[in-house]
Amino acid sequence: MELSAVCHFADKRYCYALEPDRFLIRIRVKKGDMRRVALHYQDKYLPLRFKDTRQAVDMVLAARDRVSDYYEAVIGFHMVCLRYWFELEGTDGERIYYGNYEFRREPFDDVERMFDCPQNQREEERLTVPGWAKNKVVYQVFPASFAPTGPIGRSWYRAPISHRTDLGGTLRGITEHLEHIRQLGADVLYMTPIFEARTVHKYDTVDYYRVDPKLGTAEDLKELVRRAHGLGLRVILDGVFNHSSQQFFPFADIVEKKERSPYLDWYFIEGFPLRMRWGEKPNFKTFSYFGGMPKLNLRNPAVEEYFIGVGLYWLRECGADGWRLDVADEVGHRFWRRFREAVKKEFPEALIVGEEWHYGGDYLLGDEWDSVMNYPFANAVTDLIVRESITVTEFFEDLGFLRGNLHRETYQVLWNLIGSHDTRRFARAVRGDREKMRLAAALQLLLPGMPMIYYGDEYAMDGGDGGDCRRGMVWDEKRQDRELFDWYKRLTALRRGCPCLTEGTVTAFRADDGAGVAALTRRLGDKEVTLLLHAKGGEAEAAGYAGRTDRLTGRPFSGRLGPWQAAVLDGAP
Amino acid sequence: MELSAVCHFADKRYCYALEPDRFLIRIRVKKGDMRRVALHYQDKYLPLRFKDTRQAVDMVLAARDRVSDYYEAVIGFHMVCLRYWFELEGTDGERIYYGNYEFRREPFDDVERMFDCPQNQREEERLTVPGWAKNKVVYQVFPASFAPTGPIGRSWYRAPISHRTDLGGTLRGITEHLEHIRQLGADVLYMTPIFEARTVHKYDTVDYYRVDPKLGTAEDLKELVRRAHGLGLRVILDGVFNHSSQQFFPFADIVEKKERSPYLDWYFIEGFPLRMRWGEKPNFKTFSYFGGMPKLNLRNPAVEEYFIGVGLYWLRECGADGWRLDVADEVGHRFWRRFREAVKKEFPEALIVGEEWHYGGDYLLGDEWDSVMNYPFANAVTDLIVRESITVTEFFEDLGFLRGNLHRETYQVLWNLIGSHDTRRFARAVRGDREKMRLAAALQLLLPGMPMIYYGDEYAMDGGDGGDCRRGMVWDEKRQDRELFDWYKRLTALRRGCPCLTEGTVTAFRADDGAGVAALTRRLGDKEVTLLLHAKGGEAEAAGYAGRTDRLTGRPFSGRLGPWQAAVLDGAP
Repeated sequence: MELSAVCHFADKRYCYALEPDRFLIRIRVKKGDMRRVALHYQDKYLPLRFKDTRQAVDMVLAARDRVSDYYEAVIGFHMVCLRYWFELEGTDGERIYYGNYEFRREPFDDVERMFDCPQNQREEERLTVPGWAKNKVVYQVFPASFAPTGPIGRSWYRAPISHRTDLGGTLRGITEHLEHIRQLGADVLYMTPIFEARTVHKYDTVDYYRVDPKLGTAEDLKELVRRAHGLGLRVILDGVFNHSSQQFFPFADIVEKKERSPYLDWYFIEGFPLRMRWGEKPNFKTFSYFGGMPKLNLRNPAVEEYFIGVGLYWLRECGADGWRLDVADEVGHRFWRRFREAVKKEFPEALIVGEEWHYGGDYLLGDEWDSVMNYPFANAVTDLIVRESITVTEFFEDLGFLRGNLHRETYQVLWNLIGSHDTRRFARAVRGDREKMRLAAALQLLLPGMPMIYYGDEYAMDGGDGGDCRRGMVWDEKRQDRELFDWYKRLTALRRGCPCLTEGTVTAFRADDGAGVAALTRRLGDKEVTLLLHAKGGEAEAAGYAGRTDRLTGRPFSGRLGPWQAAVLDGAP
Repeated sequence: MELSAVCHFADKRYCYALEPDRFLIRIRVKKGDMRRVALHYQDKYLPLRFKDTRQAVDMVLAARDRVSDYYEAVIGFHMVCLRYWFELEGTDGERIYYGNYEFRREPFDDVERMFDCPQNQREEERLTVPGWAKNKVVYQVFPASFAPTGPIGRSWYRAPISHRTDLGGTLRGITEHLEHIRQLGADVLYMTPIFEARTVHKYDTVDYYRVDPKLGTAEDLKELVRRAHGLGLRVILDGVFNHSSQQFFPFADIVEKKERSPYLDWYFIEGFPLRMRWGEKPNFKTFSYFGGMPKLNLRNPAVEEYFIGVGLYWLRECGADGWRLDVADEVGHRFWRRFREAVKKEFPEALIVGEEWHYGGDYLLGDEWDSVMNYPFANAVTDLIVRESITVTEFFEDLGFLRGNLHRETYQVLWNLIGSHDTRRFARAVRGDREKMRLAAALQLLLPGMPMIYYGDEYAMDGGDGGDCRRGMVWDEKRQDRELFDWYKRLTALRRGCPCLTEGTVTAFRADDGAGVAALTRRLGDKEVTLLLHAKGGEAEAAGYAGRTDRLTGRPFSGRLGPWQAAVLDGAP
């Protein structure tokens, strides 16, 4: 048995309350190393001589990544505090007991040497995510490029474009095309920033309380949200609180009054005169090295209050359903805790999603964000389909890392994306290969989480790095790939009609990595469904499934998988 | 190479700023598995085409536990954000690269797949501990049993005693005996609770703003702190904020006014009539199952404010130097963050120590406590000396777990104890064996951290479980073990005079587990010192060291170690 691989910290990452008196405990071990893992537990404070509260339960293999297995147990137990330890039975026949970071050859009987879980005494720490968001589909829009008010001019479809190209999209344009988003089958609209700014992308806010006049008015925003809600669409705004523009009033005040500005400590000013021009090395903290984006001092209570105010204002004012937070990992925990507390107090159902390009476990413990932009998902899809550098098994193991290291609820609201306004288009990555695009969409839309569709991907829109991924949305039918759009619609419809795909428990996983074929079976209630994938070019055999109805086509499955094909079949293998 | 043992999370546990532009990065691997571990890093935002910021450094083996090695690198680098990945060179010759939770056979060149550290942008999160506290010696007093005002009565030395026995010790009694604590060589006095309560131990507070009249007055407390400070002794108070007594005014108000009390949400009341009597199952949350200790609702802002007020009040009022926090792990993170913020704002040098009987890593990330009661240290000493169930190597590995998993600064302020008011006396555990007691004291006092001496251990005081470990302090010289006291004095004097013992970097560790002999060498500047231990009965050979001066005895070391003997010698092996 590989003891050095055994990893359990008795903190909220691997041990938490699901509700009062109901706990989830998890332990990480070497992949394939265990025949059986059991959890032994008892009341912390009741001595055995008063009452023997000892119980044991076999743990379930809940996730697997490239090198580790994650075993889980959910236990119900009324008590003040929980004590527990693990029984590890290796495939090599060895039996080891693990408690309080100590390995033993004998079971634990000394309570003070067991692991300890006081979560029952700290109910306010319980992680919850908005129920409405679980497994829902997000549609991301870059407002300046989605739709203009009125007719589309000749220059709308010009390409390539730079990050400075303003195509003139507006909020009213978006409102007029909400029906498209709903038809696609999305549940949530996420717009990149819409508040007054100098750039097209608007990640350099000038006025946090004003809708950018190029995009429209506050009334337009309210109307957009009203209409979206009418269609059953939620709306998520983009909050840029890490930095502002140089024209945001406190920075402008510093520029004007220098050392005498009352806003000096809203930023991190290192000296005067300010070096503000493009190409100069700024003498104040910035986002990246951009002098045009001075970093805000959110540890200043006045700044904290200001931006919590912004966060609340727009939820009140326009009825939006949450915030996506820009460069959220450079802001720090304290502000996000305060932000969440204030937002959730007034809007318990608001969704808070941080921009974090990596595994963001330390922000996802229940008191900061609900979710992240799931770039690790994009990496796994890229490796499987674009680079063709990993196997189907490895693809699911890469998702398994997230499943094993994040809260069970969190996993259902991760924004699973394959591209965004910050990356080249997926269509570009696969050089227009429709089969690959279809499979990528299937992976987004047939797995748990919140798939995030970047506007236009449903029509196979092209675009490269930098600003070129923000081209004008293709409203001209001749430019649309209607077949791909239909594929997306079928995927979202199936996702909606078959909760087993997203909420079911995995009951079987089979893969033939040589052939690039995987079959993932889930069960929910008495319903069982198998997702069949072929992550390779050419054809592959899947004869065992022949004759069942492919729920994606409505036709009997032939027993053969085409290149990069997915199928959804009822029942287990 | 054992990849399943590789553990790095890019959060504050394994990756943090020591100061602006200076970072510590740590990675856990299988024990003995690596020939070399290197850290590769570069600026996150500067593209290589503008400036090639790539650097690499070999990491140092900083700690080892039973199954893992912990490699560390400290790097200085001016940047907005840091990107990094690891190069692992196995003892089996294999070379693997690890970045962003992904193992590869080729070095990383795609920045978005590296680990990411934004700590430079979040300076407010930097962990600091009060400089005065590092490696200082704590002396724990149970006030009711330490010293009465005036002469000692006949019943002072009665034994065994129960947890209900009040011997009549007072604050003035403590003040009169501060000189003893200073003579012993301690730097810090920690008193268990002194505020008005019903019990002898006073962990059931009736009035948080009043010194218990049995112990004395607020004036007595101020005088105690004044005199302690005059002797160079710091004073730590005990804060019981998890629960109160039934007589604390808000609970008393609920008892009186029932559903109409304005204090209802200061507690967790499940129904009326209240079941308050001994033997009844309380219908309100409690500490453990004790109805006499109703649990406070610290998530209620009014309660939070009240107890932060208590925390500040006594530091202001009597000038004490910090708080030890009772049952701190059942209170939860939110309150401790607020508590720390308020306390440190006014008293940046105050020390905050939580009661946590286990590895308390998640409270020790810089925004909650500075330290914990280090019961894992007591466990290791117990296993080595009392149970004789582990080797000297394993003893140091058990400390290595803490060194490997806690912040570098934290390790210097852990309250290393071998017993407390909550455990049987160490003298009882070893059945009075003086040699074992001397070695245990040496382990406390010759290693980094804050040794916590439980009052009377320096005189070999006896006492069993429950209240019996709280017997009257032995002021009668006939009852004192003066030799052991001298031993303690020599240890504290050596600790004070030889910072290399606590602040030095480990340069060599040799152990002969069969003989029970270990030699731990540290270097500080050009000074090198070796701690030699014999953790067994009988005699052992340590001939290589013969002739050097044993700094504990002042005499030449014979080359032989007696049973459970420690020696401190200049130089390396």
